Amino acid sequence: MLQCLLHGLLLRIIEAVCIGWFTAECIIRFLVSRDKCEFVRRPLNVIDLLAITPYYISVAMTVLTGENSQLQRAGVTLRVLRMMRIFWVIKLARHFLGLQTLGLTLRRCYREMVMLLVFICVAMAIFSALAQLLEHGLDLEAGNEDYASIPAACWWVIISMTTVGYGDMYPITVPGRMLGGLCVVSGIVLLALPITFIYHSFVQCYHELKFRSARVTRSLSAEFIN
Amino acid sequence: MLQCLLHGLLLRIIEAVCIGWFTAECIIRFLVSRDKCEFVRRPLNVIDLLAITPYYISVAMTVLTGENSQLQRAGVTLRVLRMMRIFWVIKLARHFLGLQTLGLTLRRCYREMVMLLVFICVAMAIFSALAQLLEHGLDLEAGNEDYASIPAACWWVIISMTTVGYGDMYPITVPGRMLGGLCVVSGIVLLALPITFIYHSFVQCYHELKFRSARVTRSLSAEFIN
Amino acid sequence: MLQCLLHGLLLRIIEAVCIGWFTAECIIRFLVSRDKCEFVRRPLNVIDLLAITPYYISVAMTVLTGENSQLQRAGVTLRVLRMMRIFWVIKLARHFLGLQTLGLTLRRCYREMVMLLVFICVAMAIFSALAQLLEHGLDLEAGNEDYASIPAACWWVIISMTTVGYGDMYPITVPGRMLGGLCVVSGIVLLALPITFIYHSFVQCYHELKFRSARVTRSLSAEFIN
Amino acid sequence: MLQCLLHGLLLRIIEAVCIGWFTAECIIRFLVSRDKCEFVRRPLNVIDLLAITPYYISVAMTVLTGENSQLQRAGVTLRVLRMMRIFWVIKLARHFLGLQTLGLTLRRCYREMVMLLVFICVAMAIFSALAQLLEHGLDLEAGNEDYASIPAACWWVIISMTTVGYGDMYPITVPGRMLGGLCVVSGIVLLALPITFIYHSFVQCYHELKFRSARVTRSLSAEFIN
Repeated sequence: MLQCLLHGLLLRIIEAVCIGWFTAECIIRFLVSRDKCEFVRRPLNVIDLLAITPYYISVAMTVLTGENSQLQRAGVTLRVLRMMRIFWVIKLARHFLGLQTLGLTLRRCYREMVMLLVFICVAMAIFSALAQLLEHGLDLEAGNEDYASIPAACWWVIISMTTVGYGDMYPITVPGRMLGGLCVVSGIVLLALPITFIYHSFVQCYHELKFRSARVTRSLSAEFIN
Repeated sequence: MLQCLLHGLLLRIIEAVCIGWFTAECIIRFLVSRDKCEFVRRPLNVIDLLAITPYYISVAMTVLTGENSQLQRAGVTLRVLRMMRIFWVIKLARHFLGLQTLGLTLRRCYREMVMLLVFICVAMAIFSALAQLLEHGLDLEAGNEDYASIPAACWWVIISMTTVGYGDMYPITVPGRMLGGLCVVSGIVLLALPITFIYHSFVQCYHELKFRSARVTRSLSAEFIN
Repeated sequence: MLQCLLHGLLLRIIEAVCIGWFTAECIIRFLVSRDKCEFVRRPLNVIDLLAITPYYISVAMTVLTGENSQLQRAGVTLRVLRMMRIFWVIKLARHFLGLQTLGLTLRRCYREMVMLLVFICVAMAIFSALAQLLEHGLDLEAGNEDYASIPAACWWVIISMTTVGYGDMYPITVPGRMLGGLCVVSGIVLLALPITFIYHSFVQCYHELKFRSARVTRSLSAEFIN
Repeated sequence: MLQCLLHGLLLRIIEAVCIGWFTAECIIRFLVSRDKCEFVRRPLNVIDLLAITPYYISVAMTVLTGENSQLQRAGVTLRVLRMMRIFWVIKLARHFLGLQTLGLTLRRCYREMVMLLVFICVAMAIFSALAQLLEHGLDLEAGNEDYASIPAACWWVIISMTTVGYGDMYPITVPGRMLGGLCVVSGIVLLALPITFIYHSFVQCYHELKFRSARVTRSLSAEFIN
């Protein structure tokens, strides 16, 4: 019991220290920056803000509502705020070359991402309507209740097209199974097409960033030597 | 209750407006087209027709059978007609570059699509017969009832080869499991082969269409300037 | 009842006609062939023989044992013989360009096929022993009974590495799940490596065979013209 | 009963002979090696040692504790030692070209392996926190108990991102399912990116090693001729 309390206390102290460090770093970066307005609008700084502020809000809420821990545990707001600690991950990992490459790729490939999204949406619309009709609509009494609604059929389509196949829903009639096979095969084909574009862009971005960081390192070491 | 009725009414009005617009657009395009016969035969116009006519048929059916909503709900024909609203999706999305590319790719790669189909069919024939024999045929009493029929075994083969694996059927005997492993690995190899052909064609089509649309845009803007 | 009998009779007649045709074709090809010994050894002719002979054996068995249909249904031998009708599929489909390419690819890539097999076997040996230990061996009483034997663990490994995931077995302890994640990721990496070699060979074989068949067609049409 | 005992005895004799051979080979290689210190540090020799020593330890333990087979069966240590026989697989298979290529690839691609790991970890952190919140945190009473803890949600994320989908956990709420679809699609994209780097390195390593082994074989046969 005591050990558990100590463990909780230790975690709280670590969190407070981290938040303190992040806050100081963020304020200094803000003061040093030339264009204050542009600083606020950059996405990475917004992530920093999202990573820091929830802590202060939750502390303020705890202070205001008192230490009524029963109330705290039930508070959805607090759980949402605590979940925002995941922004710490992005904050810490963003100096990693792979994630920088990923970010640059996503910015360059927004066209292909939209294409991937449109392919998935169009296929979902067509296959979910067909699956709902074949598995449930043709025979309401004996129909497969899993496919009773279009959103449920959409869930089945996305899980089948990506070849995940949890097995919570599957077709049982022969036409439904033929549609399922078609859906899976066309899903494999459709998803592979835009992903390869994204991949090619990723390789290019990776080599660009690697070359740039190597040049920066070289110029820095040259400065040190001189 | 009232809110639900209002919501239904709103949806009906939106549907009526959309159908009116689509009908007007389709008639004008038909009147403007030079070759009426060729206009009717183009696949995209057939899709337009399939997207519009179900509405008029269902309205006609509702008027003829009266507002007997119980009868409507049970009517399979009406559900099939309503399902044809998914052609709206194709109608609206066909101006999207990605889907045009997909259409062009499918037209050019019909040979590879046939190859993919033949591979799947041959593998299904061989593996389903073997799975049915190994899992059910060798021991009718203790056999796995899931594999009692060849169509059910075909469903298992397609779901395993595409690595979906819903888990509604799976082999339980040792020879059946060895066949299952072989089936999955050969499925991964077989499906990957023709899909890569399709992908290469897709990349080529994409660059062609992008170049063509860029040229059209440039010539249009040049006309506007002059 | 009568319809069912007629249907069965029709299927039998079709089978008899097909077998008659196949037998005649096979005998003529054998008589025409120059080297009788080499003819017998070619794999495609062996498949022809395997597709034809089961019919005669099953007919002979039926005649010898009489029309005791109860005995027939229980006969494992007959079911095995009937299953051999799947060789018809290979017999009929072998003139298809895609399957010829596949055959040529498999003959050229036997080295890569062996590599794929060795990768899978080594990974199965390592991961199944580890999974059996972590999920069942460390705690025999509370252990996951699904992983009680090494062959069962092997089945889990192959189904996880190929990302099928039927869901009949899955780890439930934390170390078992970590091993499961590692197994899946390394499976994706391992399987992708030799498959790409096979794919490159397939593309080359396809272009070779297409070029060769185009040349044959051209020379044949040139002969017809002259 | 007797057959089972004989079978067990045979397996023990085979194991003893193999271990004897491995030990002799290992000792000779150690005596022949020039630099004793470097010999001990090479990973393949460590694997040899790990493959041999468990046998002697388990024999020693059996001798010391007596032939109390009940105790043996319950001994976790013995099961761990027996599991180490899997190092035999690596020991025997390491002369295989494919596995040498794999080893060389892993040594060269450690940067890409780290990238793959970081991608998976970051995605797991983000998606598991979100999934836990959406499926369980927003409504503690009616929430999906499968997602009650973050580690369980992590297991769901890795199994979904790799498209395995065992079906032991799946989202049931609409926001959870939308997150699931997003998680699966981003998993397919994320995993494909570093794997392709690894693949390219593998192809290069394979050609290098093939060329090198061909040269070695040629020079050896040239020596034999001269």
